[in-house]
Amino acid sequence: MKNLANISFSGERFWTHFLAFSNIGALSQGGVERPFGSKEDLEARLYLQNACRAIGLEVQVDPIGNLWAVMPGTEKLSMIAVGSHHDSVPQGGRFDGALGVLTSLETLHALKEGGYKNRHPLALVSFTAEEPNPFNLSTMGSRTVAGRLTKDSLIRSRDWNGRPLQEAILAVGGNLELVEQARKTSNDLGAFLELHIEQGKRLERAQKPLAVVTGICGIHRLDVTVIGEANHAGTTMLADRHDAFLAASEIALAFEKSLLDEHRDDLVGTIGRFEIFPNAANIIPGSARFIVEIRASTVELMHRIASLFQKKAQAIAKRRGVQFNADVILDQAPEEMDKFLIAALEDVSTKLQIPYDRLFSMAGHDATHMASFTKAGMLFVPSIDGKSHCQDEESRFEDIVLAGQVMVDAIIQMDQTLDNNS
Amino acid sequence: MKNLANISFSGERFWTHFLAFSNIGALSQGGVERPFGSKEDLEARLYLQNACRAIGLEVQVDPIGNLWAVMPGTEKLSMIAVGSHHDSVPQGGRFDGALGVLTSLETLHALKEGGYKNRHPLALVSFTAEEPNPFNLSTMGSRTVAGRLTKDSLIRSRDWNGRPLQEAILAVGGNLELVEQARKTSNDLGAFLELHIEQGKRLERAQKPLAVVTGICGIHRLDVTVIGEANHAGTTMLADRHDAFLAASEIALAFEKSLLDEHRDDLVGTIGRFEIFPNAANIIPGSARFIVEIRASTVELMHRIASLFQKKAQAIAKRRGVQFNADVILDQAPEEMDKFLIAALEDVSTKLQIPYDRLFSMAGHDATHMASFTKAGMLFVPSIDGKSHCQDEESRFEDIVLAGQVMVDAIIQMDQTLDNNS
Repeated sequence: MKNLANISFSGERFWTHFLAFSNIGALSQGGVERPFGSKEDLEARLYLQNACRAIGLEVQVDPIGNLWAVMPGTEKLSMIAVGSHHDSVPQGGRFDGALGVLTSLETLHALKEGGYKNRHPLALVSFTAEEPNPFNLSTMGSRTVAGRLTKDSLIRSRDWNGRPLQEAILAVGGNLELVEQARKTSNDLGAFLELHIEQGKRLERAQKPLAVVTGICGIHRLDVTVIGEANHAGTTMLADRHDAFLAASEIALAFEKSLLDEHRDDLVGTIGRFEIFPNAANIIPGSARFIVEIRASTVELMHRIASLFQKKAQAIAKRRGVQFNADVILDQAPEEMDKFLIAALEDVSTKLQIPYDRLFSMAGHDATHMASFTKAGMLFVPSIDGKSHCQDEESRFEDIVLAGQVMVDAIIQMDQTLDNNS
Repeated sequence: MKNLANISFSGERFWTHFLAFSNIGALSQGGVERPFGSKEDLEARLYLQNACRAIGLEVQVDPIGNLWAVMPGTEKLSMIAVGSHHDSVPQGGRFDGALGVLTSLETLHALKEGGYKNRHPLALVSFTAEEPNPFNLSTMGSRTVAGRLTKDSLIRSRDWNGRPLQEAILAVGGNLELVEQARKTSNDLGAFLELHIEQGKRLERAQKPLAVVTGICGIHRLDVTVIGEANHAGTTMLADRHDAFLAASEIALAFEKSLLDEHRDDLVGTIGRFEIFPNAANIIPGSARFIVEIRASTVELMHRIASLFQKKAQAIAKRRGVQFNADVILDQAPEEMDKFLIAALEDVSTKLQIPYDRLFSMAGHDATHMASFTKAGMLFVPSIDGKSHCQDEESRFEDIVLAGQVMVDAIIQMDQTLDNNS
């Protein structure tokens, strides 16, 4: 395969690791389940540590459990890291996260094997708990590195069964008491590059094998409660009812309409979690609780939709004689990828004659949090049929190898042109 | 208090039992939770058995777990039973079911204490699983007695977690293998009388302390599944979604509109149980499952609304690219109460100078199933503010005592005038 510095990304070597890694938490229909804190999480960490040591990297586990495997540089410069996460959603696919970690492993392996003398220290990073988990803290590792989670809030965290987060963090080799030491600045980490599956259909539709990511959407989440009046489903006349479920249904459809009315590709919204109480066939629902999620390319758009939603919901609640309440539980701003890294990725792709698209990511990633304090860039490989967060998740070997080569050559270009002192 | 045969219903004795019984499964806001098969269900059964034995009744548990406590008669006649059920809805009130069982206990106690020589065997009955439960079989005990549930269907029944019904039935002292022996005919059971709370506001509005029930509504229940496509809540564009929750919301509102369009007091409908899967904030709901309930005064009206609902739901499902499926899990015809028993209850109330109303019940009751094969009658006491199936459920002591006395005197009148041989 074409390369720019006589250092070639080995698809075969990557694939051998990928198949072995996919056995960790393997499910019957081709997917994996490696939730944060599970036995499979621990097994995946051990696999990565051994694989990194086998190619001579120095393995470190930081206090939130992030795995850093370092290849020291020849000059006193800030680190350049490549990586992603190794945990998965329940009943997830093999590619989400693992692809970025294992292509990073092969990237460093190829550089080492090719005798490349890196100026900056180079590192593979695999972040702790990127996916939603029982502690309600997704992108936990990268948010901690970015200083976006406080020690106090982490120490207070428990899962739905009351298990303290510290217990899970100690098990993966971290320690919340020292968690402030996990934080990095742009002096420590000069740049971060993440390769990930697209998780949508845009590359497939554009028939491109690669995307350079321009930015990552913001995510706004509301914890909503609708309180009506539980009552007997037979003896309460229709006119006397304050049915929380019907009110919530109308609110959900009004939310959908607000989104559709915008006619935009950089805005989506979902009610993915929903429950009613007391939830019995012959009782009029007394209350409903649900999570409203809005993702958008700008803070303005995200907040405008959130505000429109609340206004419509209040009007519906008033008309139906129920109470509506919404608490903001996440308000994560969109982040642009670094212009210098975007240019390097595009330059390398062009020289390698790989057609690429520019995409704005509607999925959140660890790179969002790296972008909040240092240069961050991302590459996407296509997801077959756009499927992700399910066992059917699939990407093509040929596309992965092209992206891997872009990563190798982009790291070399970054190493040679980035020169901020550490 | 006035009575017709020098046998007085003791409000004090009833109330002592009622307060003790209300402690079983007591909740913090004054209600109770005694779902079928729970520890509280077992505790309630034990309480009733001890209380019945204490006044010399012979306690029998039939193969579906119904509790029969018998006071033998002086002649070979069919049995006259009084009773209701002791289970409750989740977060229910103290009065629903328990009131009928404990007023029946006091009725038999008063007759015994007064030295009344009953011609017919008299019995207290507390039916198994009157309320909706995880096995999707409400009025399970009375339906079995009426021969309306087959042994096969009972043995096949499992709850949503896969637990076989037989396991729960064995735990309450029954046995599905013998369930056909629980069936009764009008030769076994000559009459059944149930005292219950109204669970609506009609008596309160009419300012009457008592109602003689003329009939009980039909109930039709559908177990509905909507299957869409679970996918990533960020990367799946709005136009590509098949969101099972939004489809279900639209279906629910269409159902509500069908009901409201009829402008009738003898028709209601409710979606009281609703769940989505996989139920995670960042995954588009892949499926929804819920129970649709329709109650009406005639079979024709009930079936017309069910058919209209399915037609509308199919159209919505087609438009949204999701699958809709509905299985009928209950189709219970409306039942009229027995004219002879209505006359007896009215005659006694008139003689006791208690003002009463005649009401058609929009709540289902065990009496519905008794009415399908024998003489059945019902009395309602007012529900304060019409509240029921919630912790606020409340009835007035004075009203209960009036109804209790009507029961005592009505049983005496029935015992003396009903003379069908067993």
